[in-house]
Amino acid sequence: MRFIKNITLIGAPIKIRMVIKKMQKITGNDLKKEFTLTDAKPGESLTLRATVHKFKPMGGFAFITLRTGRYVLQAVYSPDNCPDSVEEIKEGVFAEISADVKEEPRANYGIELSVRRIALIHKPAELYPLHVSKRRLGCTLDINLDNRSVALRNPFERAAFKFQEGVVSGFREFMLQENFTEIHTPKIVAQGAEGGANIFSLDYFQKNAFLNQSPQFYKQAAVAFFDRVFEIAPVYRAEKHATSRHLNEYIGLDFEMGFIDGMEDVMNMEIAMLKHMMGYLKEHYAEEIRITGAQIPEVGDVPVIRFEEAVKLTHGEKGKNKFDLDPEDEVFLCKWAQENHGTEFIFVTHFPSSKPPFYAMNDKEDPRCALKFDLLFRGLEITTGGQRIHDYDEQIEKIKAQHLNPDDFTYYLESHKYGLPPHGGLGIGLERLVMKLIGQPNIRQASMFPRDINRLLP
Amino acid sequence: MRFIKNITLIGAPIKIRMVIKKMQKITGNDLKKEFTLTDAKPGESLTLRATVHKFKPMGGFAFITLRTGRYVLQAVYSPDNCPDSVEEIKEGVFAEISADVKEEPRANYGIELSVRRIALIHKPAELYPLHVSKRRLGCTLDINLDNRSVALRNPFERAAFKFQEGVVSGFREFMLQENFTEIHTPKIVAQGAEGGANIFSLDYFQKNAFLNQSPQFYKQAAVAFFDRVFEIAPVYRAEKHATSRHLNEYIGLDFEMGFIDGMEDVMNMEIAMLKHMMGYLKEHYAEEIRITGAQIPEVGDVPVIRFEEAVKLTHGEKGKNKFDLDPEDEVFLCKWAQENHGTEFIFVTHFPSSKPPFYAMNDKEDPRCALKFDLLFRGLEITTGGQRIHDYDEQIEKIKAQHLNPDDFTYYLESHKYGLPPHGGLGIGLERLVMKLIGQPNIRQASMFPRDINRLLP
Repeated sequence: MRFIKNITLIGAPIKIRMVIKKMQKITGNDLKKEFTLTDAKPGESLTLRATVHKFKPMGGFAFITLRTGRYVLQAVYSPDNCPDSVEEIKEGVFAEISADVKEEPRANYGIELSVRRIALIHKPAELYPLHVSKRRLGCTLDINLDNRSVALRNPFERAAFKFQEGVVSGFREFMLQENFTEIHTPKIVAQGAEGGANIFSLDYFQKNAFLNQSPQFYKQAAVAFFDRVFEIAPVYRAEKHATSRHLNEYIGLDFEMGFIDGMEDVMNMEIAMLKHMMGYLKEHYAEEIRITGAQIPEVGDVPVIRFEEAVKLTHGEKGKNKFDLDPEDEVFLCKWAQENHGTEFIFVTHFPSSKPPFYAMNDKEDPRCALKFDLLFRGLEITTGGQRIHDYDEQIEKIKAQHLNPDDFTYYLESHKYGLPPHGGLGIGLERLVMKLIGQPNIRQASMFPRDINRLLP
Repeated sequence: MRFIKNITLIGAPIKIRMVIKKMQKITGNDLKKEFTLTDAKPGESLTLRATVHKFKPMGGFAFITLRTGRYVLQAVYSPDNCPDSVEEIKEGVFAEISADVKEEPRANYGIELSVRRIALIHKPAELYPLHVSKRRLGCTLDINLDNRSVALRNPFERAAFKFQEGVVSGFREFMLQENFTEIHTPKIVAQGAEGGANIFSLDYFQKNAFLNQSPQFYKQAAVAFFDRVFEIAPVYRAEKHATSRHLNEYIGLDFEMGFIDGMEDVMNMEIAMLKHMMGYLKEHYAEEIRITGAQIPEVGDVPVIRFEEAVKLTHGEKGKNKFDLDPEDEVFLCKWAQENHGTEFIFVTHFPSSKPPFYAMNDKEDPRCALKFDLLFRGLEITTGGQRIHDYDEQIEKIKAQHLNPDDFTYYLESHKYGLPPHGGLGIGLERLVMKLIGQPNIRQASMFPRDINRLLP
């Protein structure tokens, strides 16, 4: 027992042991199960606990729609088959139901429950303020978000977040399979990874601190000891604009990999990951694809266009002084890729090197360009990535070239000083990806409890 | 193409297409692989990229120790077998090596690489300031943490974080298997879940905001639409004390489950999860168990002791006015459980109901007690959990009883008002669990880049 040292027994354990007459023990063997479809076999019976999603009396009998954590089931109640009253059974109550499972091709999943017993577990204080049991809520987004804890009881609304779980799981499964290590890095930091004014500051024990804009510095540091890392964690951007594509707190799917030959290695890894993710969703989240109407794209060969070419394509010669893509450019380029290459994805590469971030490696063949890429999907940038600078002197030089002071980045530069292999990586905005897969018009719908310039509640 | 509407093609795509002569495409088929042990088959040859962990010239030949993302491999260089010079090969450089794999029982994994070609990829600006290639760094914790990006290149140091990945993966695999949904909830909030002064505040667009002390409110809300949820995410506590068991930012492994009969359902779920996690670690993380010397516990039947009994046991009659366990009590109770029940785990339940949190359900049989539990392991509380109040009126009453104002919790209480099933859950401190499994004396060693009252960097 090496974990307990120099402990003197105080009190009188032997005598006091008598006080505890029957010592209860927890074995971990008696687990409550959550309902899944495999539990509902026609011809057999089952007992489940669920929320009453809808109650429809039909005169002599009643339809009871039950909502479990993932499914919506049809049940039929008739006093002939069940001795219990349904007087208290209505939308929103919680109940325990024993039932026979019948085949019923017209019902969800081809099954219907014939209720044998029904018991109220708990009833809410008030009726739902929204049309939870309708196919769509039919309210404005603001009302939806103001009543989020109720709105998400609507099967269409909640399905987006079960689907989100699939996106995250597909990403993670692929990363682990390719021997990336999952890491957790601090969000309270002494400096932001992206610089600029778009950063939240806080008081950290009388010190000035910030909420990290990306795990960039830490995942680069981790490449030196794990070669390949990924992180799934919140990212903070204090952007003041209120658009349909920005959140102030979102989930970043980040990875970083060492020993690359160029940023194409990172791009290849992303495309292979997306292929895996889409297959994963089709295999495990068919239910949510059906409910949300998500369109799972074919991830084939993805065309690559240089920023300079992209700008010519969108703006002709007038685009000469542009340093970034506008939202309209992203829409245009995706339309172009669809029409000319039959794909919903397009990479834009080689952005101007004068632009942040300072950690992007300049192209040796044309130092006006950085080895940086965006992946566009259905009209929206869903990824930013690239090859990073690994050489210490080169990094110091670029920090200076962007009018920053290397002394402000001492800890960050230690990784470079003591050696980093050539490396690169990317960050994917989870909510943007989900939004585009499902076809939601506003990114707030893809965030369970969104944070924007006006919204800090619920 | 429903995602693009009312877009007019600008520019002249057909003509400009000519500009892009050879369109590069990314297929996702050409993936760089990270080295794993199955790549090293005796009798075969391989090429890998790795960090030179150690270089030991022996007169006529040399031992080169290679560090990959997970393994440390022995290689032998002799000019007879390899035409390349090793003049630039030394500790800390990155190299590409082609080699024949030989059986060698005295080397790690029973294999040795006989180098055929070696090429420098990159060399750092400076030599390591720490003894990275020694079994242990042998420096103070402060020096370790100040030089974290180098310290973690030591195989013993980094193994703790690969092991951490296993703890997280084992938790997650079990949760998904039991049909919990993985969720992501905001960390910027309008009010903390735990109340009190231990909270970081920040300016959120001229509004007062906080960093969440736990996902409690949000996971309770989510029980109403997913029945069972879990989250793996940072948690913030602005605790001013500097102890070996507190971090100001840590990773919480949280779950919450609906339709329970009592808090024992939550405790059972935890013990089953821990059994799964320990099996998962033994199966997939044997390498890190070996390196760190982690002691994987037998999770058998876990004894349960009421708070009142626990206090009697530790303090005798003098403990009458105690409202919580001291660190020494936790050590004592674990020693007691080990000696009397042969286990390293013990549950303490039924804490005084006058104590926060206000969401803990009071015991109906004895309202002086709350249905709250701690799980102690190897002398430390690693979990706090319990049954929560689901009834609206009961929750309002308890908020008032704890001298708080229900009007401050309007959004939180909406879940109760519109109905929550009976539910409960828990939160596990990831770093505490890892620290105790590995036997680290200080929790900072279990955090990749720890945050404490004095430490905001790196």
